[in-house]
Amino acid sequence: MEVTHIEHIGIAVKNLEEGIRFYEQVLGLKCYAIEEVKDQKVKTAFFKVGQTKIELLESTEAEGPIGKFIEKKGEGIHHLAFAVKDIDGSLKIAEEKGIQLIDKTSRKGAEGLDIGFLHPKFTMGVLTELCEDKKNTK
Amino acid sequence: MEVTHIEHIGIAVKNLEEGIRFYEQVLGLKCYAIEEVKDQKVKTAFFKVGQTKIELLESTEAEGPIGKFIEKKGEGIHHLAFAVKDIDGSLKIAEEKGIQLIDKTSRKGAEGLDIGFLHPKFTMGVLTELCEDKKNTK
Repeated sequence: MEVTHIEHIGIAVKNLEEGIRFYEQVLGLKCYAIEEVKDQKVKTAFFKVGQTKIELLESTEAEGPIGKFIEKKGEGIHHLAFAVKDIDGSLKIAEEKGIQLIDKTSRKGAEGLDIGFLHPKFTMGVLTELCEDKKNTK
Repeated sequence: MEVTHIEHIGIAVKNLEEGIRFYEQVLGLKCYAIEEVKDQKVKTAFFKVGQTKIELLESTEAEGPIGKFIEKKGEGIHHLAFAVKDIDGSLKIAEEKGIQLIDKTSRKGAEGLDIGFLHPKFTMGVLTELCEDKKNTK
């Protein structure tokens, strides 16, 4: 598997506006996009810091994955996404190494990336996403 | 405040060797250093991925901050560190914006960086570190 950089860090927040205020007014980053991902029941705000994006995630429904995460663990970092060169090959390698996959094959995620998640029970508690930006790498 | 990139992501693990195995054998990253930080009661393993380091943290004592974190929340991402150009000026800006500081002024952290932490109650649950590498920026 070839990992090139941290693509993004997903952070579960109760209130997107409050999150945007901290990252813009305290850290001085700029929110460059707000996107609703309906099948994940989230509204997301994106910031760029060096090679990496910060992706704030506010649940649009209490029963969505982010709503449940906050209920169980509180606000905080939800997942860590690594940019890889070959998403489906990388998922296959992870599975061959004994890592349980949440996504057996890649699917479309936010910003049009091809993504797949590894199960946090096999990754020291970190919900780990692999993603490939096919627009910019092929 | 001028943030340039994500300096590192600190991940609390129960077993450093198991963590190293995942990041090396599955993700294909290379552990380039293992360091014990005695005053934090941790042993750390470092990996580089693009601009960012992954810092695995194993507690050397159950009563240390990482031991307590794992007892309360389980393994997972412990903190997020942003590289800034002026650590003490950045801490001052954060305080002026109403963010409670854990470190009022910077102190030495792992790898000789000058660091300071913001309180997670004021940063949407994310234990946020600011750090400056004075060796490479001045």
